[in-house]
Amino acid sequence: MNRVITISREFGSGGREIGRRLAEELQIAYYDNEVVEELAKKTNFTEEYIKRIEEQKPYPLFPITIGRTFSPMTNSAFEQRTLVFSEQSSIITQMAQTSDCVIVGRCADYILHEYNPLRLFVYADMDFKMARCREKGETQKDLTDKALRRKILSVDKERSKYYQFYTGQSWGEKTNYDLCLNTTTIEIKKAAILLAGLIRSNTPNEKFFFP
Amino acid sequence: MNRVITISREFGSGGREIGRRLAEELQIAYYDNEVVEELAKKTNFTEEYIKRIEEQKPYPLFPITIGRTFSPMTNSAFEQRTLVFSEQSSIITQMAQTSDCVIVGRCADYILHEYNPLRLFVYADMDFKMARCREKGETQKDLTDKALRRKILSVDKERSKYYQFYTGQSWGEKTNYDLCLNTTTIEIKKAAILLAGLIRSNTPNEKFFFP
Repeated sequence: MNRVITISREFGSGGREIGRRLAEELQIAYYDNEVVEELAKKTNFTEEYIKRIEEQKPYPLFPITIGRTFSPMTNSAFEQRTLVFSEQSSIITQMAQTSDCVIVGRCADYILHEYNPLRLFVYADMDFKMARCREKGETQKDLTDKALRRKILSVDKERSKYYQFYTGQSWGEKTNYDLCLNTTTIEIKKAAILLAGLIRSNTPNEKFFFP
Repeated sequence: MNRVITISREFGSGGREIGRRLAEELQIAYYDNEVVEELAKKTNFTEEYIKRIEEQKPYPLFPITIGRTFSPMTNSAFEQRTLVFSEQSSIITQMAQTSDCVIVGRCADYILHEYNPLRLFVYADMDFKMARCREKGETQKDLTDKALRRKILSVDKERSKYYQFYTGQSWGEKTNYDLCLNTTTIEIKKAAILLAGLIRSNTPNEKFFFP
């Protein structure tokens, strides 16, 4: 069975950077927005449309080309969301079957539970996340602190709703993860090296992280 | 400043074993019940009495020798608990000032926040904790599964109440820790080696874990 690491993360915590660095350290595949792009190709949905659906903000007027997976019978926002999620799940599963990989977001921890992934959750204090967002230019430069805080909270609220909707579990509840990392105090580079060492030291017959 | 690692843990999760192994790996001091013993010596309280107070179950009829820190004016259960906690806090602070160390439980993460400790929380699934309790003989052999589950929950409930009472924070809430480890899937030996590596790689001027 391939080694699969799934990463859930709070917006601005640096979870994606940990994922990229970890994949580099281990020389394995890294998936993030690629999932959406791949999905967009398969369904003939435009990427923008998929993103809107993922954020649970269906945009009925958005022009789409109906792809092979869609029939005229399945056109409600709910059905479209469900189809997109099931398409996405099958792509994520293919990825896990193809090679060792790191997958960020997308409920991959839940979708791939049969693959015994190492499930990480990355979080940080609000001040750290705000500073990082400004440093990385992940949000508009002219946002006030108040607006930036609101933005961070709202992105995470959407992630939480999305995760809860498709998994029935609480996003960020530590019992759903193997390791929770606070990047306020743990340096991202070190965390990646550390985790790579832990993963390398593992053989499929051992406990962590193939029970 | 000395390197201080504090460990909070769910009953049966193996947090104490991680602490012991980590201290061995790093060749630094390890404190656990020693704190209580030391405290008992200082206050002339018997150990048993201190333990009862720590569990927030004062036992007024228990014979005690009044120690130097106690006056006839301070005899209510509440005042005694508070005195014991403040004695304990000063001992824990002395320990952190004396040398690098691992301290398990006792709200040390909160008491020592000025020392920028690495704050770990160790947890596991109930089935894992039950199996481990039986394996380690940490509870009576003849307990039914139902009784064992109740015992585990009640110990953690006491820990949670104790932590909340003295720190005003939620016990086990991941934002209060730097790293949360699920020993259901992460092998304790490996976790200790991993953490030791992370700590060794750190110099006081770097971020983790001396921000």
